[in-house]
Amino acid sequence: MTLFDESELRRFAEAVFLKMGCPGDDARQASDVLLAADLRGVDSHGVARLPGYVRLWEAGRVSVQPEMTIVHQTPSTAGVHAGGALGLVSAPWAMDLAIKKAEEVGSSVVTVSHSNHYGIAAYHAMRALPHHMIGWSMTNASPLVVPTRGRERMLGTNPMCWAFPARRYPAIVVDTATSAAANGKLEIAERKGESIPEGWVVDSMGEISTRAHILRDGGSLLPLGSVGKQAGHKGYALGSVVDLLSGVLSGAGFGPWVPPFVSFLPMPENPPGHGIGHIFGAMRIDAFRSADQYFTAIDRWIERFKHCDPVDESQPVLVPGEPERQAHELRLATGIPLTPHVSDQLFALADRWGLPKPVSKQ
Amino acid sequence: MTLFDESELRRFAEAVFLKMGCPGDDARQASDVLLAADLRGVDSHGVARLPGYVRLWEAGRVSVQPEMTIVHQTPSTAGVHAGGALGLVSAPWAMDLAIKKAEEVGSSVVTVSHSNHYGIAAYHAMRALPHHMIGWSMTNASPLVVPTRGRERMLGTNPMCWAFPARRYPAIVVDTATSAAANGKLEIAERKGESIPEGWVVDSMGEISTRAHILRDGGSLLPLGSVGKQAGHKGYALGSVVDLLSGVLSGAGFGPWVPPFVSFLPMPENPPGHGIGHIFGAMRIDAFRSADQYFTAIDRWIERFKHCDPVDESQPVLVPGEPERQAHELRLATGIPLTPHVSDQLFALADRWGLPKPVSKQ
Repeated sequence: MTLFDESELRRFAEAVFLKMGCPGDDARQASDVLLAADLRGVDSHGVARLPGYVRLWEAGRVSVQPEMTIVHQTPSTAGVHAGGALGLVSAPWAMDLAIKKAEEVGSSVVTVSHSNHYGIAAYHAMRALPHHMIGWSMTNASPLVVPTRGRERMLGTNPMCWAFPARRYPAIVVDTATSAAANGKLEIAERKGESIPEGWVVDSMGEISTRAHILRDGGSLLPLGSVGKQAGHKGYALGSVVDLLSGVLSGAGFGPWVPPFVSFLPMPENPPGHGIGHIFGAMRIDAFRSADQYFTAIDRWIERFKHCDPVDESQPVLVPGEPERQAHELRLATGIPLTPHVSDQLFALADRWGLPKPVSKQ
Repeated sequence: MTLFDESELRRFAEAVFLKMGCPGDDARQASDVLLAADLRGVDSHGVARLPGYVRLWEAGRVSVQPEMTIVHQTPSTAGVHAGGALGLVSAPWAMDLAIKKAEEVGSSVVTVSHSNHYGIAAYHAMRALPHHMIGWSMTNASPLVVPTRGRERMLGTNPMCWAFPARRYPAIVVDTATSAAANGKLEIAERKGESIPEGWVVDSMGEISTRAHILRDGGSLLPLGSVGKQAGHKGYALGSVVDLLSGVLSGAGFGPWVPPFVSFLPMPENPPGHGIGHIFGAMRIDAFRSADQYFTAIDRWIERFKHCDPVDESQPVLVPGEPERQAHELRLATGIPLTPHVSDQLFALADRWGLPKPVSKQ
């Protein structure tokens, strides 16, 4: 692992997006989403994905000068056609539209079609926080997850995310994939040569497997709750909700027709919708009760949960989003660790495009 | 098991609610929610709960002539004070308000405080379906679930529910508790003298247990995804979302302060909010895209998922909500099975109140 200052990786990411032809604002916006992931410790969704975005662009699957248009709207809703934009750009744009509409009529929901991978869900939902709103965000994603009883990849890891503003404490941020485990955890186990716990994946026949590289042998991720036949149907159901809201309601691709994130996989044929889809929502706190009462209540919620009797005194109960926030503070101060694999890929990109390499911390 | 006609149990439930002093419309409404549960196969939430509602009413914890008032509103939101109503009555009322607001401005969200147990979440969300809207519904509930790392009961089984209208196929209905297992499954195992799978419950020290009666010995349910330390944090996070939306945003009780459903447990002292809380949402399909396009897309979603390659040819992949819909059809035709324990309780109530007993099928 090598440590890099946040500002150094941000500079590099911006340079890459500019080189791809993104307008300055879009390059800054896209980089801000990636760096938020790296700071929050979601390494799989940060600058490690830069080369992937570049390859998608080279394959002509991303538009860097997209025309984003509202194709349908009411006072509290909008359906947005993202014109093939980076999700890193279209998602904050759509979330800001949701915030504006909630400002006017209390709450709102905005869907996005014809988009691409949008980074971490939390970034977008959290845009609502300074406005004293609850924000939420979901996206579908390339198929990797089997439905209960099935052995085909039908759903992405389809995250659900909500962000709740608080007063005396930091916001509560829930950002969770609806699969049992993230793909990134498999990659880590594989790199260490370790097997993975039962209940994360199945092989191509739908049999439980503990092999970390099973996805490359035609295996699939299991939905949340998936050990045996216990509660996987719940994760399948929640992943379906994300797909229906993000894909079917928006007009994007859905199910097995969601475009792959990796450029070497072919695009789905005759898709019933276009691109990756997202959905965003915003709710003004004072559209439901006095904001002051809400803030008093949520601070008390946080305090009470942090003081819940722990199983192990050395492992206190955490509030959702606390680990990510702690990572954010730590990494802002001490730097963002990149594996040699990731930093080498960034250096190669710098060489190829004649960009200054990101410089590691001394 | 004895079979009863739906209409017979409905008649009895209405008579009980009328005897409690509910107005006729409310008695019909409350019974409709209970019977929907029995028909859909959610036996734990149907007429089996009637004696529990009666005891809550006898303990003065339910108002049968409630004054339900909108305490805050915007064009797309409302905060409702349910005045101690049965959730079976306040929830459909609030959902209908959400539908009305979505009709006007595209989408809506309505919270409810000072309420009680609202039956199955699906009933309320599904009210949106005939209006060509997506409906959603959540509620908090009496604390039974530990947070990750904790050994105190801090959350209810807090369900999340969404209902999506379709055209050629029945609606997709997701209604899932955010705990690993429902309390009802423990009761069934206990009655059979069976142990339960690892990952459903912990004992009072937070250690994994397989004893079905552990809740009566101070144990707790685990959140969804909870085997070992794998993904329980996801279920904890989702259960928290339900509690924050239903309780903190509405002004109801939350966390360990949610009132118990059973009347023999004391009410929480100095609660930071009042009663059980719910949240409802509605989204007009044509507020996002043409309804015709949506219906074509969701029908295709359903068809594709039903044709997903199954692990076992004899067990086809189901669409969320399909088992409940199948139960509904079957039970409408053949009757609702009640255990002797449940029917005896209903007969005792009939005796006590001089009501005609529900008559079983021949």
